[in-house]
Amino acid sequence: MGKTLLSSISTRAPKEFDKQETKAKTEAIMQKLDELQNLLYAESKHAILIVIQGMDASGKDGVIRNVFGTLNPQGVTVKSFKVPTAEELSHDFLWRVHAHAPAKGVIQIFNRSHYEDILVTRVHHLIDDDTAKKRMKAINDFEQLLTEHNSTRILKFYLHVSPEEQQERLNERIHDPAKQWKYNANDFEEAKKWDDYMRVYDDAFTHCNNVPWTIVPADQNWYKEYLIANTLLKTLQDLDMKYPGLKKEQ
Amino acid sequence: MGKTLLSSISTRAPKEFDKQETKAKTEAIMQKLDELQNLLYAESKHAILIVIQGMDASGKDGVIRNVFGTLNPQGVTVKSFKVPTAEELSHDFLWRVHAHAPAKGVIQIFNRSHYEDILVTRVHHLIDDDTAKKRMKAINDFEQLLTEHNSTRILKFYLHVSPEEQQERLNERIHDPAKQWKYNANDFEEAKKWDDYMRVYDDAFTHCNNVPWTIVPADQNWYKEYLIANTLLKTLQDLDMKYPGLKKEQ
Repeated sequence: MGKTLLSSISTRAPKEFDKQETKAKTEAIMQKLDELQNLLYAESKHAILIVIQGMDASGKDGVIRNVFGTLNPQGVTVKSFKVPTAEELSHDFLWRVHAHAPAKGVIQIFNRSHYEDILVTRVHHLIDDDTAKKRMKAINDFEQLLTEHNSTRILKFYLHVSPEEQQERLNERIHDPAKQWKYNANDFEEAKKWDDYMRVYDDAFTHCNNVPWTIVPADQNWYKEYLIANTLLKTLQDLDMKYPGLKKEQ
Repeated sequence: MGKTLLSSISTRAPKEFDKQETKAKTEAIMQKLDELQNLLYAESKHAILIVIQGMDASGKDGVIRNVFGTLNPQGVTVKSFKVPTAEELSHDFLWRVHAHAPAKGVIQIFNRSHYEDILVTRVHHLIDDDTAKKRMKAINDFEQLLTEHNSTRILKFYLHVSPEEQQERLNERIHDPAKQWKYNANDFEEAKKWDDYMRVYDDAFTHCNNVPWTIVPADQNWYKEYLIANTLLKTLQDLDMKYPGLKKEQ
């Protein structure tokens, strides 16, 4: 069993990043995002889909709160994908996901996503490698559909924490009264499958990278938030949007 | 034709409110709302439904952006109700609305709502008074269902602007390049039906007040935002929520 891709990537901010400076930069980016989101909504030519994946306690909820919490909720929606219901399982695995694809003008955030169908399902041997391979093909086709047919920019973030940092955060959930509601004894069991998860993540990054993944060093929240906000900023700036003028019939 | 209820209520902030002081108060309220929303989400015992109604350009979008824009988007969703689709019209008028009723733990905002079905439809004579009366009964029953059977607190806000303020804002949409996308020539036609709208609103306030309406003086954004934020704050404080401890199986 070889080293995984993820094990060779640091979970900490690059040395040249200073915490206070970076936080100030993030603050400035947020201001720009606010205006650009308004423009995205007004123009309604492009859609944005943000996929957030990561191990338990990697900070997915925190990103949503801190990076997207200042945007206009009218143009931002969050969908958390949990264990599929019986109805969802009676359809193909992308059925429930497609229903939440973003409309033009909207930023849609996926807290977990269709990737769980080739991650947790593989670790628990609910699907075999052949099925996983077919699903990865279907995921690529699906992402191409959204990209080409509804002008969707898809940003995929993997929140990369170390197993030590994860343990620390899971333990905190036992002791901090404001975090106990998030605690799930099962998370510790899942954590033991760390290496298995790293291997299936590797496979997902390798085979589903037509829309590229961003591996986000996520042990420090301030760097994680900066990198995600900055990636979104560049994406929105790249769209070269303009406020539409008066409608033609005027 | 008598004076309407709304014509006797000022569209401006009460004299004792100072703009800068009020803005500072709103800022402080927002901080508290952020924590209380987290608690609402963590506890997941209660749902919040916020209904925002008002004439064109009364500031509905602005409220959503400025009052709810700092909350965690994971627990806040916005549904804008537009002209019903053919599929929606092939169901009862509450069908499309019920689908967006808030889950426990969530703040759901309605930008326009089921009330349009007894407002714009009456002004345009799409329904008669008898149908309107039956719909008002159905609305009361529906609001009671959400209140009693899913622990939902419903806050209904009417953004009360003067016709003069409305005209000024509609004109601004023609001239401000960042607002032209909102301009709709038809809004000026609708504005001519002001008195008709005030009468059907009056009727809605009279007959659908089991869950009470808040009439929000809305000519000045700073007062409107304060009043709505403060009403939400009091509602959340009144719920007397607590962070759940560790799950029982622990």
